Amino acid sequence: MSDPLFGGLFSTPEVDARVGATAWLQAMLDFEGALARACARAGLVPAAAAEAVSAACVADQFPIGEIGREAVSAATPVPALVKHLTARVPADAAVAVHVGATSQDVVDTAMMLVARSATEPVLEDLAVAADALADHTERHRDTVMLGRTLLQQALPTTFGVVCAGWLVALDEARTRLAQVRRERLAVQFGGAVGTLAALGDAAPHVAALLAQELGLPSPDLPWHTSRSRVAELAAAIAVVTGAVATVALDVTLLSQTELGELAEGAPGGSSAMPHKRNPARSTLVTACAHRVPGLVASILAGQPQELQRSPGRWQAEWGAVTDLLKLCGAAAAHHGDLVADLRVDARRMRSNLDAAGDLYMAENVVTRLAATVGRQEAREIVAAAVAKARADDVSLRVALDRPELADAFDPTSYLGWAGLLVDRALTAHGENT
Amino acid sequence: MSDPLFGGLFSTPEVDARVGATAWLQAMLDFEGALARACARAGLVPAAAAEAVSAACVADQFPIGEIGREAVSAATPVPALVKHLTARVPADAAVAVHVGATSQDVVDTAMMLVARSATEPVLEDLAVAADALADHTERHRDTVMLGRTLLQQALPTTFGVVCAGWLVALDEARTRLAQVRRERLAVQFGGAVGTLAALGDAAPHVAALLAQELGLPSPDLPWHTSRSRVAELAAAIAVVTGAVATVALDVTLLSQTELGELAEGAPGGSSAMPHKRNPARSTLVTACAHRVPGLVASILAGQPQELQRSPGRWQAEWGAVTDLLKLCGAAAAHHGDLVADLRVDARRMRSNLDAAGDLYMAENVVTRLAATVGRQEAREIVAAAVAKARADDVSLRVALDRPELADAFDPTSYLGWAGLLVDRALTAHGENT
Amino acid sequence: MSDPLFGGLFSTPEVDARVGATAWLQAMLDFEGALARACARAGLVPAAAAEAVSAACVADQFPIGEIGREAVSAATPVPALVKHLTARVPADAAVAVHVGATSQDVVDTAMMLVARSATEPVLEDLAVAADALADHTERHRDTVMLGRTLLQQALPTTFGVVCAGWLVALDEARTRLAQVRRERLAVQFGGAVGTLAALGDAAPHVAALLAQELGLPSPDLPWHTSRSRVAELAAAIAVVTGAVATVALDVTLLSQTELGELAEGAPGGSSAMPHKRNPARSTLVTACAHRVPGLVASILAGQPQELQRSPGRWQAEWGAVTDLLKLCGAAAAHHGDLVADLRVDARRMRSNLDAAGDLYMAENVVTRLAATVGRQEAREIVAAAVAKARADDVSLRVALDRPELADAFDPTSYLGWAGLLVDRALTAHGENT
Amino acid sequence: MSDPLFGGLFSTPEVDARVGATAWLQAMLDFEGALARACARAGLVPAAAAEAVSAACVADQFPIGEIGREAVSAATPVPALVKHLTARVPADAAVAVHVGATSQDVVDTAMMLVARSATEPVLEDLAVAADALADHTERHRDTVMLGRTLLQQALPTTFGVVCAGWLVALDEARTRLAQVRRERLAVQFGGAVGTLAALGDAAPHVAALLAQELGLPSPDLPWHTSRSRVAELAAAIAVVTGAVATVALDVTLLSQTELGELAEGAPGGSSAMPHKRNPARSTLVTACAHRVPGLVASILAGQPQELQRSPGRWQAEWGAVTDLLKLCGAAAAHHGDLVADLRVDARRMRSNLDAAGDLYMAENVVTRLAATVGRQEAREIVAAAVAKARADDVSLRVALDRPELADAFDPTSYLGWAGLLVDRALTAHGENT
Repeated sequence: MSDPLFGGLFSTPEVDARVGATAWLQAMLDFEGALARACARAGLVPAAAAEAVSAACVADQFPIGEIGREAVSAATPVPALVKHLTARVPADAAVAVHVGATSQDVVDTAMMLVARSATEPVLEDLAVAADALADHTERHRDTVMLGRTLLQQALPTTFGVVCAGWLVALDEARTRLAQVRRERLAVQFGGAVGTLAALGDAAPHVAALLAQELGLPSPDLPWHTSRSRVAELAAAIAVVTGAVATVALDVTLLSQTELGELAEGAPGGSSAMPHKRNPARSTLVTACAHRVPGLVASILAGQPQELQRSPGRWQAEWGAVTDLLKLCGAAAAHHGDLVADLRVDARRMRSNLDAAGDLYMAENVVTRLAATVGRQEAREIVAAAVAKARADDVSLRVALDRPELADAFDPTSYLGWAGLLVDRALTAHGENT
Repeated sequence: MSDPLFGGLFSTPEVDARVGATAWLQAMLDFEGALARACARAGLVPAAAAEAVSAACVADQFPIGEIGREAVSAATPVPALVKHLTARVPADAAVAVHVGATSQDVVDTAMMLVARSATEPVLEDLAVAADALADHTERHRDTVMLGRTLLQQALPTTFGVVCAGWLVALDEARTRLAQVRRERLAVQFGGAVGTLAALGDAAPHVAALLAQELGLPSPDLPWHTSRSRVAELAAAIAVVTGAVATVALDVTLLSQTELGELAEGAPGGSSAMPHKRNPARSTLVTACAHRVPGLVASILAGQPQELQRSPGRWQAEWGAVTDLLKLCGAAAAHHGDLVADLRVDARRMRSNLDAAGDLYMAENVVTRLAATVGRQEAREIVAAAVAKARADDVSLRVALDRPELADAFDPTSYLGWAGLLVDRALTAHGENT
Repeated sequence: MSDPLFGGLFSTPEVDARVGATAWLQAMLDFEGALARACARAGLVPAAAAEAVSAACVADQFPIGEIGREAVSAATPVPALVKHLTARVPADAAVAVHVGATSQDVVDTAMMLVARSATEPVLEDLAVAADALADHTERHRDTVMLGRTLLQQALPTTFGVVCAGWLVALDEARTRLAQVRRERLAVQFGGAVGTLAALGDAAPHVAALLAQELGLPSPDLPWHTSRSRVAELAAAIAVVTGAVATVALDVTLLSQTELGELAEGAPGGSSAMPHKRNPARSTLVTACAHRVPGLVASILAGQPQELQRSPGRWQAEWGAVTDLLKLCGAAAAHHGDLVADLRVDARRMRSNLDAAGDLYMAENVVTRLAATVGRQEAREIVAAAVAKARADDVSLRVALDRPELADAFDPTSYLGWAGLLVDRALTAHGENT
Repeated sequence: MSDPLFGGLFSTPEVDARVGATAWLQAMLDFEGALARACARAGLVPAAAAEAVSAACVADQFPIGEIGREAVSAATPVPALVKHLTARVPADAAVAVHVGATSQDVVDTAMMLVARSATEPVLEDLAVAADALADHTERHRDTVMLGRTLLQQALPTTFGVVCAGWLVALDEARTRLAQVRRERLAVQFGGAVGTLAALGDAAPHVAALLAQELGLPSPDLPWHTSRSRVAELAAAIAVVTGAVATVALDVTLLSQTELGELAEGAPGGSSAMPHKRNPARSTLVTACAHRVPGLVASILAGQPQELQRSPGRWQAEWGAVTDLLKLCGAAAAHHGDLVADLRVDARRMRSNLDAAGDLYMAENVVTRLAATVGRQEAREIVAAAVAKARADDVSLRVALDRPELADAFDPTSYLGWAGLLVDRALTAHGENT
């Protein structure tokens, strides 16, 4: 764990292992190894030399601290990496090292490899969480609860609809992240200024083979001067963290002691108060997601990069992308724990609804009454009854005193298309799986 | 123009007319009119009532200032809007006003309509600009110039490759914006808490008809609790402004007096210095784009919205989306002017290249020399020659003194796949048009 | 109102009048007028010419739309402004127009004047609000309520302490904003590159007189290349909006139907639900404050400006600062309304506390018990009682069954230094007034 | 180094050691130790118990990874920390552990201690850099160079003025950071909800002693519910990084091959191009500073925290503050290296100026000519000469052909108050030291 104290809160062991210093170094070496093999396949360098280079590309065997220190003077770790790699192969294999490439080729492609690797467990966590949400959605199709707008009690809804909303948002968000991962994480290879001049006519062939070796898409053009791939990755991550943070926020609110409709399966304790049952998972999801927009803004602001390589905005991406992957991973993991073990108190939902009185049924009463007395008169009658109910502190039903409308006050009869929304969400989720 | 002084810099007349107060009001009325018609088609209200409501939905006839003032007390303009709309139709048509809807339905759908409308001229401007970039790309396929990394002279490239990079980035960015516009700007309709309770069994039918009336996609679920549509719109705008700002930045740099390779067709003057020729269009593109990441961060941070309607984060979207549309519109328009009238000084590009000496050909000389003496010896020979060239202030060719390698110093022979990249960009652009 | 529909939500009439297009134009003219007078006082231009220029500097007499349109070609409105100003004075007064100045002098100083003007009503609103908070603080010195951490019931506190926290934060924030307003909003005057070359030896004298005329501090150096003044203004605004948004958030939470401890004096209605009492003022404060961090980030990111004038980052400040002033003004005004008319339900606070049981007194019981049995044994006894209370659904007092500790369960006896904190906040506020 | 590969680029060994996991743990333990001693001094716990606790507060002896893992379930490391601390002292010293405190007291105060510690080397680096800038300012008081606006050649200035601008900005920024460090990094101590109920009447005394033990200011009120201290720290850091990034940006631009007026003392190499001399230090400063605004926005957005402790926004501060300290430290350190070893090519500055022609003296010529022919005629004459000079590609002096004005073309005579600005900057710096 890169940070033994806070790492478990704001990253996960899985993601950490895929975005840590060693993972970055290995990704850079993966580029170098693949490039050597591509050059050999294109006939530019001897196969044996490429094999030697490829075999040497094992991060653990490199002095990472030394490379890090040397990176400062060049503002990139690549010159030091190439130096050490060259030193680790036989002299006659040096011809197969870093052929035609520039620092940005190595780091940009490594960033794509790191992102591809780190998003794998994230997408898995999200898929499991989506299934868990689908279970809640299905199970609570008819669990009536209060809907709240601006945090005020509004009208009845079902917990199934709430879960359906979470589910559709999560399914859309992870689908987009998977799409960006599949289509936009491409190899970067252009040499110093994008022309691959050192490769001459072999440039397109080597570029295609390199992409093949790495299993990454081969873009039409090198993208060192266009950062939209990084921007789209960042945005997709932000939409994922937004989706899971919405769940966390709602769980936090519905877990308030005074509401008590939801609870985390393993609430957190307090250092001082033995009775506390804190929504710890939700808190961590919220905290991770809170960090994301600022990081995305940093990446978006870095899009315009100067000419053939930027003196600063490019380098700023490395840490921001790394942090986004960590925070997204942690948010997804904590969210996964949260929804897997979410306690739903359907009885409390119902008792809260019952305790809310029946004023929220006023809209329905007007509609029902309008059928006999006309809308205008219905509105006036009901408005007067609402006022009376408030003044006398009685229910609207009592204040209205129209026995023939008794069933107009049943919240379970006032749920519109709630069931249909649940069905739609589950169908869409089924197609998404 | 909403801002007569700065509006032309940070918005455009076309976009301003589509995102101003009146446009927002009209979009909200378009929702109300379409809802009335949908309810009539579903048999919920009399056709005549719906027609009366629909006919009354003309923004210019509403007291916008009064509605604005009344909006403060409810934190939304919708209650006042509904009141005024009701007052403007015959009493028996009131039954067709705002049926089953809530404030958020009106404002969210209006935001989608405003965004759809405002992005139309933006996408047109971007398409024209892309064609202009394609022209530059084609025309300058073989225009050799210096590539610069970290703002230092690096290796030769062509202006065609530079333009190809701009073109591909712009084509990708506008394709994504068009996709978001087409697929993600959907109707929002759910009533107070998403259940459309007031519509009962008619809910799905009315929702589908409403979407049809507005020409917007009908989503599986109301999206009032999931803001990814807004987030994706914002992100797509940011990628567009990133793409055009990259052009502006490069033009600004290549227009520096000392470089002089590009110039704006209509450079800006100075209030004090008669000789100044400022890159005014590029400056405005950069300024507009600079504002975007912070606005996107604001929208991303607002994604987790509380339960069935947020007390604050939702309302914060309105101004942020409006500003994003203005700034994107202005950036696209200024960029359009910029590329339509860009002056390319190919001779200056060549003379700058010639003045740069020939040290940048060192890489090529090593390659050529290696064929006869081996790579290791080649490197040593060339390194010595580079040192000598620097010490004696002579060219590398002179310092090396190997007449058989005279043609290894020709920059036009050291352009790798530059021509191919141009072809690829033009082909992709052709398919995109 | 610059935006008749949303302007009242996200700005105020007072601030709008001070940051609108006309206000900006007048501020630029105020610079020009003051510069003419300063030059006359320094003997550089005839007094009559300066008087003519000064008298002409009335924004309403200028064709603002035309200046705005002309501004596009120069990426600044100043050349057009100077042209129109020159045309509006007698030919022999032209000598006193824009002497030695450059566009950035005009716009930067105007931005300072606009900020000084717009923050005046904001600081007044904040002062009034602070007094209102002080009243609440004093009145509710002993109003016991539940403290909630992570939105879970924790321990008793007083509403006085809650208000004291709001008050101290607001007092600190407005003190800092006033300090920045007083000390950091300085005149910018340096001519094209900062040297005031056109003024020769008269430069320091004219600069000092200009500052005097405008009533702004005269900085040691022109600050066109250093944007920390703008950054500090933005940050101070963000701290103010953070302080008032904290109040709004807490009010929103404590106004939840299920808590009901606070209510806005004039809650907002709903377009669909007659029974809703929405925390509309709090919602607007939250919405305004939500927009601020992204705008601040934009200004902070624009700090490094290229050489003697930036092609883009400088211009991006104008709209961002304008929006910050509007949003801060609106947040302060809505917050002012909120606290002036805040309904505090002390009985509900107490009944919520009573309904919370007595588990939260566990900490106190341990302390009391420890005096006789030692801390370790006390902890064990109480932990067992807590478990029993939960299992049997009885109070801790009943589960513990130690009559001698009956008074250890009184929440009003467990408030620590709550009263002292109230006193401190009121004393500090008194010194601040 | 927490990140062996990139840590040297985006942090420094000094700062890393002060903000790493162990430093945070030690800071939390420092709080616990100081609290124990304060309680003993207040007579609440036996001195021997406090001494035992205090002596046990050594981070290296704690299982940091285990605490980190346990932190996940509580969303804070404090419960685990307290458990381990209690286990590490004799049973009868447990009475002196964590008395009256809550998690937020520990983490917030630790954050302040970490910030105080980490900003120490930063402020030292900045002081040394300011002295270096003062040296450059003084040495280049009369070094004439071109001023450039919007990256176009404008008017002459001196490198002394450029350095003076950098110097004043840096001095102001570090003064503010030092002020925030001294005045706003205060102890947080309030217990679970701010009342310090567990301490009863001893609360204020213990709080004051705790602050004394830690050498931190003791605020009027606990600040757990008001985050302006964190916001002000973040803003002050952003102004510092803005100041050093301005230097880096200008150095990068003036180091462009085509300008060559500045160079880094130890430019970076390239992995592919032997001739490259990259502005590596400037690049790193820019990269570090680029990350800051997004992090600040995250902290500002987190200011409104829910009631007595936030479920998410509070926790999000920890990583953001840590990253800000690292990036600020790295920016300051790289900037220090940059200015300590900056190569100023005064001859190139002069030759660039000479090569720029003399059109930029037009303004001066008008002024001089006006003395004899009047301003209006002077303007017309000079405008005609400018046009002729451009058309004939000759100098303005030749085109004007007025020998009596020959000395009006001397750039060294057209520097206004440049010398005075240098003096002012040096005087202010002297007072600041």
